[in-house]
Amino acid sequence: MVIHLKKGLDENRVSALAAELKAIRLRENGTQVLVTSSSLLQIDPAIELLVDEYFVCRTDIQLASTEYRSSKRLVTVGDLHIGGDLKQTLMIAGPCSVESEPQINTVAEFLVGLGVRMMRAGCFKPRTSPYSFQGLGLKGLELLAHVRENTGLKIITEVKDATHVDAVIEMTDVVQVGAKAMYDHGILNACARSRKPVLIKRGFGSTLQEFVQAAEFVLSGGNENVILCERGIRTFEHKTRFTLDLCGVAYLKEHTNLPIVVDPSHAMGFAYGVPDLARAAMAMGVDGLLIETHPNPKTALSDASQQLDFGEFVALYSSLPMIAKAVGRRMI
Amino acid sequence: MVIHLKKGLDENRVSALAAELKAIRLRENGTQVLVTSSSLLQIDPAIELLVDEYFVCRTDIQLASTEYRSSKRLVTVGDLHIGGDLKQTLMIAGPCSVESEPQINTVAEFLVGLGVRMMRAGCFKPRTSPYSFQGLGLKGLELLAHVRENTGLKIITEVKDATHVDAVIEMTDVVQVGAKAMYDHGILNACARSRKPVLIKRGFGSTLQEFVQAAEFVLSGGNENVILCERGIRTFEHKTRFTLDLCGVAYLKEHTNLPIVVDPSHAMGFAYGVPDLARAAMAMGVDGLLIETHPNPKTALSDASQQLDFGEFVALYSSLPMIAKAVGRRMI
Amino acid sequence: MVIHLKKGLDENRVSALAAELKAIRLRENGTQVLVTSSSLLQIDPAIELLVDEYFVCRTDIQLASTEYRSSKRLVTVGDLHIGGDLKQTLMIAGPCSVESEPQINTVAEFLVGLGVRMMRAGCFKPRTSPYSFQGLGLKGLELLAHVRENTGLKIITEVKDATHVDAVIEMTDVVQVGAKAMYDHGILNACARSRKPVLIKRGFGSTLQEFVQAAEFVLSGGNENVILCERGIRTFEHKTRFTLDLCGVAYLKEHTNLPIVVDPSHAMGFAYGVPDLARAAMAMGVDGLLIETHPNPKTALSDASQQLDFGEFVALYSSLPMIAKAVGRRMI
Amino acid sequence: MVIHLKKGLDENRVSALAAELKAIRLRENGTQVLVTSSSLLQIDPAIELLVDEYFVCRTDIQLASTEYRSSKRLVTVGDLHIGGDLKQTLMIAGPCSVESEPQINTVAEFLVGLGVRMMRAGCFKPRTSPYSFQGLGLKGLELLAHVRENTGLKIITEVKDATHVDAVIEMTDVVQVGAKAMYDHGILNACARSRKPVLIKRGFGSTLQEFVQAAEFVLSGGNENVILCERGIRTFEHKTRFTLDLCGVAYLKEHTNLPIVVDPSHAMGFAYGVPDLARAAMAMGVDGLLIETHPNPKTALSDASQQLDFGEFVALYSSLPMIAKAVGRRMI
Repeated sequence: MVIHLKKGLDENRVSALAAELKAIRLRENGTQVLVTSSSLLQIDPAIELLVDEYFVCRTDIQLASTEYRSSKRLVTVGDLHIGGDLKQTLMIAGPCSVESEPQINTVAEFLVGLGVRMMRAGCFKPRTSPYSFQGLGLKGLELLAHVRENTGLKIITEVKDATHVDAVIEMTDVVQVGAKAMYDHGILNACARSRKPVLIKRGFGSTLQEFVQAAEFVLSGGNENVILCERGIRTFEHKTRFTLDLCGVAYLKEHTNLPIVVDPSHAMGFAYGVPDLARAAMAMGVDGLLIETHPNPKTALSDASQQLDFGEFVALYSSLPMIAKAVGRRMI
Repeated sequence: MVIHLKKGLDENRVSALAAELKAIRLRENGTQVLVTSSSLLQIDPAIELLVDEYFVCRTDIQLASTEYRSSKRLVTVGDLHIGGDLKQTLMIAGPCSVESEPQINTVAEFLVGLGVRMMRAGCFKPRTSPYSFQGLGLKGLELLAHVRENTGLKIITEVKDATHVDAVIEMTDVVQVGAKAMYDHGILNACARSRKPVLIKRGFGSTLQEFVQAAEFVLSGGNENVILCERGIRTFEHKTRFTLDLCGVAYLKEHTNLPIVVDPSHAMGFAYGVPDLARAAMAMGVDGLLIETHPNPKTALSDASQQLDFGEFVALYSSLPMIAKAVGRRMI
Repeated sequence: MVIHLKKGLDENRVSALAAELKAIRLRENGTQVLVTSSSLLQIDPAIELLVDEYFVCRTDIQLASTEYRSSKRLVTVGDLHIGGDLKQTLMIAGPCSVESEPQINTVAEFLVGLGVRMMRAGCFKPRTSPYSFQGLGLKGLELLAHVRENTGLKIITEVKDATHVDAVIEMTDVVQVGAKAMYDHGILNACARSRKPVLIKRGFGSTLQEFVQAAEFVLSGGNENVILCERGIRTFEHKTRFTLDLCGVAYLKEHTNLPIVVDPSHAMGFAYGVPDLARAAMAMGVDGLLIETHPNPKTALSDASQQLDFGEFVALYSSLPMIAKAVGRRMI
Repeated sequence: MVIHLKKGLDENRVSALAAELKAIRLRENGTQVLVTSSSLLQIDPAIELLVDEYFVCRTDIQLASTEYRSSKRLVTVGDLHIGGDLKQTLMIAGPCSVESEPQINTVAEFLVGLGVRMMRAGCFKPRTSPYSFQGLGLKGLELLAHVRENTGLKIITEVKDATHVDAVIEMTDVVQVGAKAMYDHGILNACARSRKPVLIKRGFGSTLQEFVQAAEFVLSGGNENVILCERGIRTFEHKTRFTLDLCGVAYLKEHTNLPIVVDPSHAMGFAYGVPDLARAAMAMGVDGLLIETHPNPKTALSDASQQLDFGEFVALYSSLPMIAKAVGRRMI
């Protein structure tokens, strides 16, 4: 249950009430909010006197649910806006990894030339093998900071574990919680405290329920700036790397109030299918697309098979505005 | 390996050769074709003299593969065409089941009014429970035959097992091999013999490889008129009925030469998500859409939750042509 | 709901009642039984007068459920018994396919020598590729009939579609409904009519609910002799062919009244893991094991990698009685 | 490739070589070891002079593979030993969570009374919902430390993210890397540095390849004391909480050199199936069992449905030695 308390309540009273209800306290738009377990379905009359409004949610998807708040939340990244009722779809593009200064600068220039406004690139790569390229780490973050300074591109990059979460929060515009880190409370708690926009990727073995509950950790910790990103789930089908769950996207659009981004690159795992899937996501009216592109995918140090080369990216990019328009949206 | 034999070879020689290579014989466009296991990678010089051309395929996806034939096959249903290089997307719509004469006539009239040209409706329902509605059977087929006669609508209906496959072949325009019957050799063999257009639905537990191999049974039996239909696979995610595998659709477009239809209704299981998914499939440039619609979904005898009511269908239907146009196609 | 009617009711009255309740009629141990949809939770007082006893089941698992009948059903195959309270585990072994008369005779002799009493071997192979060995068909059935005559071995063989189900029913002791045919109503209905023991393999994409509902088709058609066989489900893990679902076996033991057989050969797909998994199933107290063994697995025409050679089979076979004893059972 | 260098090589030379081969350096039993990517298949003759022995591994499962080392590794926890050629199966039992001092003392006393030597209990619970009990944290660790002091029980407890990994390493005998933290490099790296025994639970969405690669991070970081724990994977089947992958256990036994523990409690999710599955794992000859038991499961603050009560645990526990004996092992 999400409870909006009446204004002007004594602080001690609120604390006592939170303890009594085993509730999490936060503030939304100036209102004091208590969030209890969803198993609480009714309010005691004694408590009701302190309550302005309350919302019963069917599961522990509460702050993120349309049962609590039916309009879509708006996440602000400087002068960019994601979600809300803006009917915009943000293109986020860039290489899998920061590999070197020339590589990342080449990509940045290319994207700026096209009018893309947010760049992705990984510094801390959550590789499954200790014998693969692990990313440039802090040095990569610094290269991205230079790109931001020089180009005005907004930067999103991934945090892979709690040991470097503070550095990523400090040095990027949007923190990406990777699919393998979706359950990481060390990361989620740090993000909750920071108020920095957070894009949470769905774990490839995670249910939609768990996915939104990860967002719920950040929201209930006081950070409203949460974006969900579907990037493919693991199924029995192995001809493609993962299975992009667009049924899941339809579910999230219906049942949650969070902006939704789709990453077809990781789902497909092969460049040939990425444009079609990106167009599919656009036709569904999602709030953003996350596409991997690299100056020379064949030589990429990670995810070589799935990154678009610049020609392929341009072809895709130029095909999207008409689809956006067909569904009443605009690509930014 | 697919082998095109030289013209004018003696029949006995061809038979002997087929036996020697353990090959299946068929005819494509007047050419004698032998299909061996894909493990045959080279041709004996003695045999080469009889051969016009041959195609090595990496797996037992052979006749359906782009390695054998890179252009998309065209399936003809009377005056309708599916696939080929027509850049058309066929709308196929109708209720889950034929329930009664008034019900099916109401739907048919509605569809004709909109300009839809092919109707779906099930007579033999492959229900998982013996205690649910099992369909009207032959009586349903007759009702559909009347609809065809009265309206000119093309009819597609499902065969659930080999005991009634001949009746379905005789009385419909396109035979639908249902997801639960995808491996049924009794059905596939009957379809192969008949030359009637066949739409094969992917089994929800079937890999893409197995899916196309089911088509390969029909193709190698001499029936070229095969359409593939993706309708969702079973995954760990249960908030939606199945998971529509659009990565799989991207794979099929790249690696096979068969027309592809997408059925978002069964994948999603809930009407609210069907329009978005239908638009996504349209943006991918598929050859057809299969959508369930019912005059009054709440009272439907099967699949009540996923059928669009007429208002919802019209809203979806009218949104599709612009997306088709955005990707260089036309909805028919 | 399962309803036991009072004895001596007028036939017309029973028919009328079945029609009114949309119930399936059958006879169990001389009692007239009506089975309605499980959504019927209460009985009309007017009807109650005709009813001896009734059982509310939570889902359309009804006749197979422990809610209806808590003791395990006993299936009789000549002088062999499976299930009931016998605390026996039946070994069923043999090659994947009947390949030739010498091959099948060699296996039969080997098994008889060990004291194994039921042999498996496929004649109609539900291959996924049209370019693979499809089985010997009717000729294979005849070879199996000779084996039975010569050795007294009971025979179980698979039916793959409805076109040959009558032949299989006639010529074997137990009809195996294969994993790919689990939803085939043509087969299930023929088995229901025949009263022949039926072993239903779980579809690799089928839920436990659907699996037991397939049995429910046979049971509600009047054939009580149904055995369930777990043989692995399809998951994201591809290092093994399938994933043997022993959690599912625990579920079936708790919630159904049907004998349970486990097939580790198809689940694992590699001979090296079969003995360990067979021992695991034995330790769970299942009613039977289905193990593939072949005189020379490397040359087998199907499933070459998973069949035990005779040495491996003997090693496994001799290790099982002690485990059976440790859990209070006996291997037969 | 795993390379054993000749003894007595100059330190600088080894460093240069490691850099040249992009190899990870470690020491095993006094030997200097370099581990390169598995894509390295041959050694340069110039380098060969420095090499004592080298092992080509087919994938990035290297140090853990039987291709590198065919005998099973032995992990030592004080006077307890897991793995090696001891033919012992260690029982590890305890509640899901430390809930209070009386609760954990009651369990400890119960286990000591039975002769169980290692206790599990969670302090940092990786709950999917922020509105559920999150564990006692450091206070729980202290309660466990008292139990160890008072009873001599070895303690295993879970680390959920990198923020508290050092505390867990310091205060327990075995560090459990939970299923949701399997990819957490912050945790894996800390475990690698510590030399403390580590039990890694397979992520429920993780392939066997990735599972063993997580172990590879710890092994290649210089900590040989790694135990693998199968605890169920996520599949389409939801009648049980997860699907225990015993095919996977058979694979791990065949292809890796690490001790293997099976946790049937989390896989099943329901107490009724745990004893059967524990017996199954014992019959497979695994190195340990991890079973949840609680004085009063119904009141448990987490995992209430799957914990055995003491009576159920005793019944299971007493049934295991005979099965162990039947497969040539001993339960400790």
